[in-house]
Amino acid sequence: MDLLERRIKEDGRVLPGDVLKVDSFLNHQVDPVLMAEVGQEFQRHFAQAPVTKILTVESSGIAPAVFTGYAFKVPVVFARKHKSVTLKDDMYTSVVYSYTKKVSNHIAIARKFLSADDKVLIIDDFLANGQAVEGLIDIINQAGAQLLGVGIVIEKTFQKGRQLLDKREIPVYSLARIKAFENGHVVFTEEQEQPDGGQQG
Amino acid sequence: MDLLERRIKEDGRVLPGDVLKVDSFLNHQVDPVLMAEVGQEFQRHFAQAPVTKILTVESSGIAPAVFTGYAFKVPVVFARKHKSVTLKDDMYTSVVYSYTKKVSNHIAIARKFLSADDKVLIIDDFLANGQAVEGLIDIINQAGAQLLGVGIVIEKTFQKGRQLLDKREIPVYSLARIKAFENGHVVFTEEQEQPDGGQQG
Repeated sequence: MDLLERRIKEDGRVLPGDVLKVDSFLNHQVDPVLMAEVGQEFQRHFAQAPVTKILTVESSGIAPAVFTGYAFKVPVVFARKHKSVTLKDDMYTSVVYSYTKKVSNHIAIARKFLSADDKVLIIDDFLANGQAVEGLIDIINQAGAQLLGVGIVIEKTFQKGRQLLDKREIPVYSLARIKAFENGHVVFTEEQEQPDGGQQG
Repeated sequence: MDLLERRIKEDGRVLPGDVLKVDSFLNHQVDPVLMAEVGQEFQRHFAQAPVTKILTVESSGIAPAVFTGYAFKVPVVFARKHKSVTLKDDMYTSVVYSYTKKVSNHIAIARKFLSADDKVLIIDDFLANGQAVEGLIDIINQAGAQLLGVGIVIEKTFQKGRQLLDKREIPVYSLARIKAFENGHVVFTEEQEQPDGGQQG
């Protein structure tokens, strides 16, 4: 998605440890016009998929997820993050390790909002080591729901998240794919390197 | 906003302690089509206000705030919540007490996203005791920015938040105003009781 890659080049900041800060338009300050484009692009890509529900994790996933939900006209559920969790009968929970923050969080979704009838599209802001997406997939499996695909705003192709998903043959569509950081600059993969995650339905 | 009041009557659940659960369309599962209507309604109401930025608090404020930002075509900044905070030069911070959870949280906004030139509209999901809004106002004051108004999805008129804001002559527009819970049912204020918060700009 050219619009997004341009924005990352203009406003993203590369910090030590391969951290890309995009807090001016994605995960602290949000550009809602860009997010609406993001949502429409996910809908175009997964248009053939009979999506009944969008899943994401608070907080940075919410903005791209709700605009995707708007484009599909389906509900969005955001998993809550907790430092610890009191296991409750009415919640699905999973554990997500954050490599960036070096802490484990529990994520939880109320059972009543995810059932075996649901066909789910996961939307998230970043795919790096894939831990958040793995946690959501665990919850989808607990519910007996069907995962149709994963839409990612920014993917770091050099971390292991993408391979984990490819190995399980889950269709992944990332709007910007970063293959490296060189001298503080972002290097994107070429367009043709994008595997086709669009074989839906 | 009739659409919202109907939805609260149909899908909201009243729990002991005057707690209204609206997690099926607002703060866990989100109805993005309703949120788009909410954003458009805030924009219609505050149309004369020269808003440059929308402020909210993670996580439940994000969905209504980003659709409001989309309607105004301005950026949205969501304050991050932290149990504790390391005071940093590059952040504005404030303390917010939650009466529901009986804990204090710190909220923080990066200084670079709020300046003395900004004219701010605060959007939040609930107004009860007004603590979250007060925290955001504290941060707006620290930045020397101007507060133009507050847009609330659901207000509990019988708690003190609204009076706090009225006393400071801050224009408040709430889409649904609950005056009481009676036998597990929601009682809304009458339309004409809504003070005019629309005298903007």
